[in-house]
Amino acid sequence: MADLIARRRALLGPNVPTFYDDPVHVVRGEGVWLWDAEGRRYLDCYNNVAHVGHCNPRVVRAICDQAATLNTHTRYLHEGILDYVERLTATFDDPLTTAILTCTGSEANDIALRMAEGVTGKRGIIATDATYHGNTALVSHLSRSNVPEVGFGLGQYLRHVEAPDSYRIPDPDGQRFAAQVEAAIADLERSGIGFAALILCPLFLNEGFPTQAEGWLRPAAEAVRRAGGLLICDEVQSGFGRSGSHFWAHQRQGVVPDVVTLGKPMGNGHPVAGLVTTPGIMARFRSAFRYFNTFGGNPVSCAAAMAVLDEVQERDLQANAARIGRLAAVRLSELQQKYPVIGDVRQSGMVFGAEFVLDRDTKAPASAYADRVVNRLRQRGVLLSRLGRHKNTLKIRPPMPFGEEHLDLLVTTLDAVLAETPVSE
Amino acid sequence: MADLIARRRALLGPNVPTFYDDPVHVVRGEGVWLWDAEGRRYLDCYNNVAHVGHCNPRVVRAICDQAATLNTHTRYLHEGILDYVERLTATFDDPLTTAILTCTGSEANDIALRMAEGVTGKRGIIATDATYHGNTALVSHLSRSNVPEVGFGLGQYLRHVEAPDSYRIPDPDGQRFAAQVEAAIADLERSGIGFAALILCPLFLNEGFPTQAEGWLRPAAEAVRRAGGLLICDEVQSGFGRSGSHFWAHQRQGVVPDVVTLGKPMGNGHPVAGLVTTPGIMARFRSAFRYFNTFGGNPVSCAAAMAVLDEVQERDLQANAARIGRLAAVRLSELQQKYPVIGDVRQSGMVFGAEFVLDRDTKAPASAYADRVVNRLRQRGVLLSRLGRHKNTLKIRPPMPFGEEHLDLLVTTLDAVLAETPVSE
Repeated sequence: MADLIARRRALLGPNVPTFYDDPVHVVRGEGVWLWDAEGRRYLDCYNNVAHVGHCNPRVVRAICDQAATLNTHTRYLHEGILDYVERLTATFDDPLTTAILTCTGSEANDIALRMAEGVTGKRGIIATDATYHGNTALVSHLSRSNVPEVGFGLGQYLRHVEAPDSYRIPDPDGQRFAAQVEAAIADLERSGIGFAALILCPLFLNEGFPTQAEGWLRPAAEAVRRAGGLLICDEVQSGFGRSGSHFWAHQRQGVVPDVVTLGKPMGNGHPVAGLVTTPGIMARFRSAFRYFNTFGGNPVSCAAAMAVLDEVQERDLQANAARIGRLAAVRLSELQQKYPVIGDVRQSGMVFGAEFVLDRDTKAPASAYADRVVNRLRQRGVLLSRLGRHKNTLKIRPPMPFGEEHLDLLVTTLDAVLAETPVSE
Repeated sequence: MADLIARRRALLGPNVPTFYDDPVHVVRGEGVWLWDAEGRRYLDCYNNVAHVGHCNPRVVRAICDQAATLNTHTRYLHEGILDYVERLTATFDDPLTTAILTCTGSEANDIALRMAEGVTGKRGIIATDATYHGNTALVSHLSRSNVPEVGFGLGQYLRHVEAPDSYRIPDPDGQRFAAQVEAAIADLERSGIGFAALILCPLFLNEGFPTQAEGWLRPAAEAVRRAGGLLICDEVQSGFGRSGSHFWAHQRQGVVPDVVTLGKPMGNGHPVAGLVTTPGIMARFRSAFRYFNTFGGNPVSCAAAMAVLDEVQERDLQANAARIGRLAAVRLSELQQKYPVIGDVRQSGMVFGAEFVLDRDTKAPASAYADRVVNRLRQRGVLLSRLGRHKNTLKIRPPMPFGEEHLDLLVTTLDAVLAETPVSE
């Protein structure tokens, strides 16, 4: 272990992030399980990339068969990308009928911002102050914690609005959030930059997945439309049925975005991502910019992505996400009765978690406590993480085939860890 | 065919590039061959992504085996990325010993420019006026033909220098090119922007792979160093033995770059890319910027990339590139004796081509002629393209296992096409 960490440092440089004080050395995966080099099994409650389960046999077979047959770029004609984009866009509402395939969600968001500029002729972008949309020079600036002292990027063109927080800042109908968006639009227009787009995750997953009524985003979306800007929904985490109630989380929010970006779960770990938009916006982008992505939309990536769609739809994993999410909320609420440190329980389908506070009245975030809990769960064989503006909320976002027996193991283990972890420690 | 083109337009939007007036509908690949839907076989003289041959069995097996075992991100410990980066960096000269793995060459170049800014504290970038370094908002601006009317990106921070052209602008020792780089540096410094980096492909492949003596880049590299900037070598096309004489083309140019970016051939079509740099630059970047790439360096990508390295080294494909490249130069020079339209023949290992001119004295580019030749070759079952500032040079850049019998078929077919294609047509 020490040897691996030393090799990482020498070969990859300093500050390459690992999870846990005692990082896990993984060697094998299957379904919702990971194994380490000593043969110990871990329940994976974190990895949304392995959307239809680690090493899903259908996805592996699709990759192997296509890799052995043909893998090349889209300057030749091939059915793979066409069949996939047809199936993919069929899951969206009109007029979201066209797509670009890339390799990463970062690339997709990088294109989406250029689309906004191409369509509006303006550059002002609005995002929340606790978000993350990727790692290119342009989109890395969207994330406040990522803005370095130097760096090409959005810089002056960016305005942050306060991330929604249903636990601390009531905003039942989204009017408060919409007012902030309107103020940021006004500021961008006043400064001469002009407003191009609002980009957000429809479930605000990085922000701590606040509890929101259906249609909550409608007022903000209307403000964006009135100002002539684009609504970009980053569904890299929230899509492909994870929200439980809808295939795409924006559908639950009652809006039809102008651009939807996709990534992580799309190929179950195979590097495929993309975006879906309207024919009008696509035509504007394709006329204003030359864009070609060598690996984007290659036959193997499309085969992997098609197998993921097949699995989600044929095994009805969206319904599973809805059912397990509801159960998880019940089970976590039971723990909340027992442990005052749990200030709030939230869930959006197959994303759920508990927010830790030092005091239920002041709601002071128990961030260090959350860190201890995450590390102790890892020691007991349960893998998850934490997120939110205060990094005090458990991030439980397992592969979609996560079942009742897995939820039971998670909750039982969490119960034991909370019992052995006093807040005052 | 018409149906596929109509579906492409509806699903992917307008202006999505295809090769040839009559695009090829590919369904299968093996070694240096591609097959279309009618079962017709094509000799692939173009695709460098399939570096060790289409559907290379060792690479396919590596992908299948690892995809069935584990595929996850690098926040856990895994030997795959460490073993690969160790093997990869062993092919570089000191002090190029550390790496970041990404999914695309575009992502790698996007990081490289940020590294330059992180190290120098300045933003001025120099590139040639006939280059291409990728498709993110930041790096797409490096390519003059790609700069849209609008667009986030390098904008004011970019200076272009004239692409080297051994056929028209003699510069035997690289002093002329170095003087242009010096002038661009002076201009950036004068304007207050400051100079951060020179980025180039060491073989100037997009520019038409000019004939250059070994060590040709040294004067430009020295100018960069004197000014305190970084030399970024984009070896996305030129690396992994393609130059024939060296594993990395910059080694032939007599320079040790600060950053080397990698892409296309690295995983034989699997989306893996990256960059190699010094520990000092890596540490500066890792301190100044938070960077994480979900798919970057995953076990499957590393297994694919390792299999490519194994193939290149065990089958000594670099030596094959050197041998076939030399033969190709001889065979193309024979055609040059026969056809006055061939103004120049050039080769750099497994990249070779003929430049077409309307008149050998004026050297007026025969761009439309080159287009006709490329399309007629496609009709006769030979796939290649054209490049250079005037798009009048054949771009012959086949998979590395390209052998003498393939070269013979290529030259014989080209001979027949040139015979049936009068310049005055």
